[in-house]
Amino acid sequence: MMKYGVVAFPSKKLQDLANSYRKRYDPHYALITPHMTVKGVFEADETEIEKLSNEIGNIVRSHKPFTLRATGVSSFSPVTNAIYFKVEPTSELLKLHEDLHTERIGKEADYTFVPHITVAQKMTSGEHDDIYGQLKMAGVNHEETIDRLHLLYQLEDGSWTVYETYRLTGDEN
Amino acid sequence: MMKYGVVAFPSKKLQDLANSYRKRYDPHYALITPHMTVKGVFEADETEIEKLSNEIGNIVRSHKPFTLRATGVSSFSPVTNAIYFKVEPTSELLKLHEDLHTERIGKEADYTFVPHITVAQKMTSGEHDDIYGQLKMAGVNHEETIDRLHLLYQLEDGSWTVYETYRLTGDEN
Repeated sequence: MMKYGVVAFPSKKLQDLANSYRKRYDPHYALITPHMTVKGVFEADETEIEKLSNEIGNIVRSHKPFTLRATGVSSFSPVTNAIYFKVEPTSELLKLHEDLHTERIGKEADYTFVPHITVAQKMTSGEHDDIYGQLKMAGVNHEETIDRLHLLYQLEDGSWTVYETYRLTGDEN
Repeated sequence: MMKYGVVAFPSKKLQDLANSYRKRYDPHYALITPHMTVKGVFEADETEIEKLSNEIGNIVRSHKPFTLRATGVSSFSPVTNAIYFKVEPTSELLKLHEDLHTERIGKEADYTFVPHITVAQKMTSGEHDDIYGQLKMAGVNHEETIDRLHLLYQLEDGSWTVYETYRLTGDEN
């Protein structure tokens, strides 16, 4: 079995900003560049990858490019000490997430989708509170168009490698 | 200006093998997953990316999937202390490399193409000789089909993020 995920990589500008925090505060920093997950980790056999990729491609292509608006800093604490750039949950993004969670590919979404770009995680509660204060003050206010998603799979060392890129074209399949 | 490159990411199996060495012997380990570079670092403006990507896509799609044969371990020493899995320089691969080095995209290739997957680099000469002996003995003998290439760009921290994926289809454009 392999682990897969579907993400958007934002522009260099937003990735550089996220990395300025991640390099200090996120132990996953080296495993993947800054991203917004649209379909979280799911398992599938290595032999299914092409079929899986085709189904995901059909879904992604049926959606149009969307605006990613990062509108502030928030935290998943106390559930988990992860700090993130909030991404506005537009109806386009929620529909895309929903469509990517069908029985045919992986599984249904098991909790509410909170679009985000993680910038800090796995801290102690003390560290979390310190850093959260700093990042809240620094803030983030950024808007860009996302016109593609990527299917990734995870290597044994935990890093993620790209398998396919899908354009958000809005075309009928 | 941004830095771009075009690479093939081999299968999970070959990437996991390369990473078993890279995690100890390659300081670039965290910047990119194991890869074979087909068009090395070149610069272009951020605004040119879509045009660039279209030109690269047209070239890549005009080539068929090729066999990547990793047939042993070699080193670029004494030029540079980098150890790599040798990839057989088939005529298909050399032609693909040549076609990706035109004036329209970046520049011409400035030295002979030696297809490879780096597994160790930036060592002292003493370390290099030690590790080279070990890796030579372990060897590598692996064959797989590469059916896609990816356009990457580099972030400020040196890591590489994927912009586009091109299938090697062999279609006429």
